Amino acid sequence: MNVEIITVGDELLLGQTTDTNSAWMGLELARSGFSVSHKAVISDEPMHLCDALDAALGRCRVVLVTGGLGPTLDDRTKPTLADYFGVPLKLHEPTLKAVRAYFDRRGLPFLETNRLQAELPDGPGTAILPNPLGTAQGMWFERDDSVVVSMPGVPHEMKGLMTNEVIPRLMERFERPFRYHRTVLCFGRGESYLSQQLGDWEAGLQERGVGLAYLPSFGQVRVRLSAVGSDEAAVRALVDGCVEEAAVLLAPYVASTRWEQASEGLGAALSESGLQLAVAESFTGGAIAAALTSVPGASTWFRGGVVAYSEAVKESQLGVPAAVLKEHTAVSAPVAEAMALGVRERLGADWSVATTGYAGPGTTPEIGTAFISVAGPSGSTTTKEFHWGRSRDVNIQRGVTEALHLIWSQLREANEDCQKKVV
Amino acid sequence: MNVEIITVGDELLLGQTTDTNSAWMGLELARSGFSVSHKAVISDEPMHLCDALDAALGRCRVVLVTGGLGPTLDDRTKPTLADYFGVPLKLHEPTLKAVRAYFDRRGLPFLETNRLQAELPDGPGTAILPNPLGTAQGMWFERDDSVVVSMPGVPHEMKGLMTNEVIPRLMERFERPFRYHRTVLCFGRGESYLSQQLGDWEAGLQERGVGLAYLPSFGQVRVRLSAVGSDEAAVRALVDGCVEEAAVLLAPYVASTRWEQASEGLGAALSESGLQLAVAESFTGGAIAAALTSVPGASTWFRGGVVAYSEAVKESQLGVPAAVLKEHTAVSAPVAEAMALGVRERLGADWSVATTGYAGPGTTPEIGTAFISVAGPSGSTTTKEFHWGRSRDVNIQRGVTEALHLIWSQLREANEDCQKKVV
Repeated sequence: MNVEIITVGDELLLGQTTDTNSAWMGLELARSGFSVSHKAVISDEPMHLCDALDAALGRCRVVLVTGGLGPTLDDRTKPTLADYFGVPLKLHEPTLKAVRAYFDRRGLPFLETNRLQAELPDGPGTAILPNPLGTAQGMWFERDDSVVVSMPGVPHEMKGLMTNEVIPRLMERFERPFRYHRTVLCFGRGESYLSQQLGDWEAGLQERGVGLAYLPSFGQVRVRLSAVGSDEAAVRALVDGCVEEAAVLLAPYVASTRWEQASEGLGAALSESGLQLAVAESFTGGAIAAALTSVPGASTWFRGGVVAYSEAVKESQLGVPAAVLKEHTAVSAPVAEAMALGVRERLGADWSVATTGYAGPGTTPEIGTAFISVAGPSGSTTTKEFHWGRSRDVNIQRGVTEALHLIWSQLREANEDCQKKVV
Repeated sequence: MNVEIITVGDELLLGQTTDTNSAWMGLELARSGFSVSHKAVISDEPMHLCDALDAALGRCRVVLVTGGLGPTLDDRTKPTLADYFGVPLKLHEPTLKAVRAYFDRRGLPFLETNRLQAELPDGPGTAILPNPLGTAQGMWFERDDSVVVSMPGVPHEMKGLMTNEVIPRLMERFERPFRYHRTVLCFGRGESYLSQQLGDWEAGLQERGVGLAYLPSFGQVRVRLSAVGSDEAAVRALVDGCVEEAAVLLAPYVASTRWEQASEGLGAALSESGLQLAVAESFTGGAIAAALTSVPGASTWFRGGVVAYSEAVKESQLGVPAAVLKEHTAVSAPVAEAMALGVRERLGADWSVATTGYAGPGTTPEIGTAFISVAGPSGSTTTKEFHWGRSRDVNIQRGVTEALHLIWSQLREANEDCQKKVV
C-alpha cells in the first residue's frame, strides 16, 4: 500500500533544517506494510500545499503531512487543510484543557497564540489525534476513500503521533500486502566490486521477485534485499534465502546479516560476551564514543573514553610516552598503539580502540592520513594506516566506520579462536 | 530565481538513508541567489523520474537531480535522462581515462561496470561536468531555456560538483535578484514565547518586505529574517536593521546574531580569548566533544575530554571522590561539579563542562534527570539541573545544546566582568 509524505517548511527548502523525519517515517511505515512512494518538500505558502495534495491524491490514497502547525504566524497548514476539506475550525475543549495543562506543568505562561492551537477542524470525516508531547494536535481527514493526516514537524512529537495514532489507524483502515527486507552489511569493498561478485545471481533476482539495492556510506555498503506478497511466510522465506546466498557470494566482505549498523552489532557482540570497551580518540574527536552511546543499553558494555585532542592530553591521560610522540609524531602507528593500550589499562576495559590522524581541512600533504589501533584482552594490538582525502567531515565519518569495523572484526576473530580451542 | 531538487533512490523513500544533500544544496544555492522552491524524493523507477521532471519543469526553469548514477543495476537515472532529452549515450574518452586512473590510483581492479560509467549523453544542449572525486560524472541538459543537471548522490561528490561546476554555470546562465538572510540564535524560551515578545513588530514585517521564520530545535530557536531584491546594499541594510531590532526585543534570550550554531560561536569566543576548553561527559557520551570537534580549527581551543560512562572511570580519570559518588549517586550536582573541576585540572584547560544524567530509554522516574556543570578559570562552578522526557536521543541532544549554551554564556559573563574591571 503506497503512502506519500508532504513536508511543509521554508527552513527545509532553504536548508537550515535537515529532514530526518521522513527517513524515520519510511522505516516505520515499511514495518507495518506501507511503502513510501513519493516525498515532497514544499514552502509555507498555502497554495503550494493545495497543489501538492492534489498531485499526491492523484497517485495514492494516503498522504501524511508534517510541519507548519506551530503557534507562530509563519505556520499555516491547519487553516489550509480545513479549507481544502471544507470543514470549519472550532474550539476543541479537550485540547484546550491539555494545552493549558502542558504550560502549567512547565510553569510557563499560557498565551493567546497557544489558545488558537486548540481551534481544530470539526466536521464529517475529520478526527483529532491527541499529541501529549506538544501543543499542536494531529489531524485526520478522510474523503472519497482517501486519507490525509497532518502532524507537527517536531521529531519526537511526530514520532509519538505516528506510533500511537497514525500507524494503528492506517493498519485498521487499509489492507495491504506483506513487505519484508533484510540487509547484508558489507565492509572493505565498494558497491561496484560487490555487484561484480554477485554477477548473474543479481541479474536473476528480478525474475524471483526480489529487489536489490546498494546503500553505500563511507567505508561500508549495505546490500538491501526486499520482497512483497500476500503470504507472509513465503515472502520471509524468499528474502531469508536470498540473504544467505548473498552472504556466501560476498563472504570475505560481510560484517553481518543481522545488524544494519556496526555500532549495534558491536554492542551486541560485547554484551553477549560480557566484555567492556574503551575508546581513545584524537581526530574523531568523540564521534566514536557518541556513535557507541547512541545505542540504548551501551552502559553495560561501554566503559568510557578519552578525547585526546592535544599532545599533552595524550601524555597525561593515556600515558603515551613523550619520547614516542617526539620520535614518531602524534599521527603515527606507535602513538595509536600507545593510546589504545593506555586507555584499555587506565579505564579497565577488555578491548579498546584508538584513533590519531589529520582530519583537515587544509592543503598540507599529511591531511587524510590516519592510524587506528585496537588492543585486546591479550594486550596485543592491531593497527591500520589510512590515506584519505581532504574533507574533514568525511575523514571523521570514515574514521568512525573503520574503527567500529576493526574492533568488531577483531572481536569475531578472538571468539573464533576461542571456539577452536574449546573444540 | 527558483530551483527544484529531485532526489532519486528507493533507500531514501524506505528511510534507510537520511537525505542530508538537499539541505546543503539549499544553503549553497541561497548564497548564490537561487531559491529552492520544491523538493521531490522519488523511487528508482524510470517512469517516476520522467513524471517528476514534467512537474518540475512546469513550475521552474532549473531542476537539479541527485542520485541513481551508481555503477550497479538498480541505478537508472543516466539512460532515463538521455531518453527524456532524446540524446544518445556515447563513450566519453576523457571520462574513461579519468575513471581508469581513479581505479589505478587506489590499486583496485577496473571492471566492465566501471567502463559503462564513461558512456555519457552526447548531443546539442548537453555537457559533461567532470567529477574527480568519483566515477559518475555530472550531466547538464539544456532545452527550451530550461536546465536539468544530474549529479551523483554521494554527498562529497555532489558537493564538489555543485561548488566547482553547477553553481558557477548557473550563475553565468541566469540573472537573479539578491537574497539575504540572517539568524538570531535564541536560547531559553520556545517559539511561541519569542513570537509573543516580538508582537506587533513581527506582524509589520510583511509590509516591510521581510520574511520571518522560527527554526526550533531542542533547547534553542533560530529566528531567521530574510529579504529579496535587486539592490544588494538595500536588501542587506533592511535585514541587518531587522536583526538589530529583533535582538533588542528578544534581548534576554539572544545567544548570538552572528553565529547559527552554538559550537561555532563558542569556538570563536574561546579562540579570540586564547582560552582552552575540556569536557567530561557521562550521559551525552561524547556527543559534546563530537559537536565541538566538527568545527574546523577546534584543535586550537579544544583540549580534549573524558567520556566517563561508568562510576569507576569518573573516579579514576576525573578524580570524583568515591564518597561523593556514594553519598549523592552518580547523577547529582556534586558529581557534575567534581567532574567539571576534575577534567579542567587534569587536562590543563581554562574552562570545562561536565554532564551526568539518565538518558533513557526506560520507565523509571529518574529518566530525563540531568546535571550540567561548568567550571571556569577562577575554579568556581555553575551547575544546572534538568528534568526532561524519556527519549534517549532527545535527552542527549538537549544535553549537548544546554552544555554548549551554558559554557558560552559563562564565557560571555566572564568577558563582561573583565571589561568592567579594565574600564
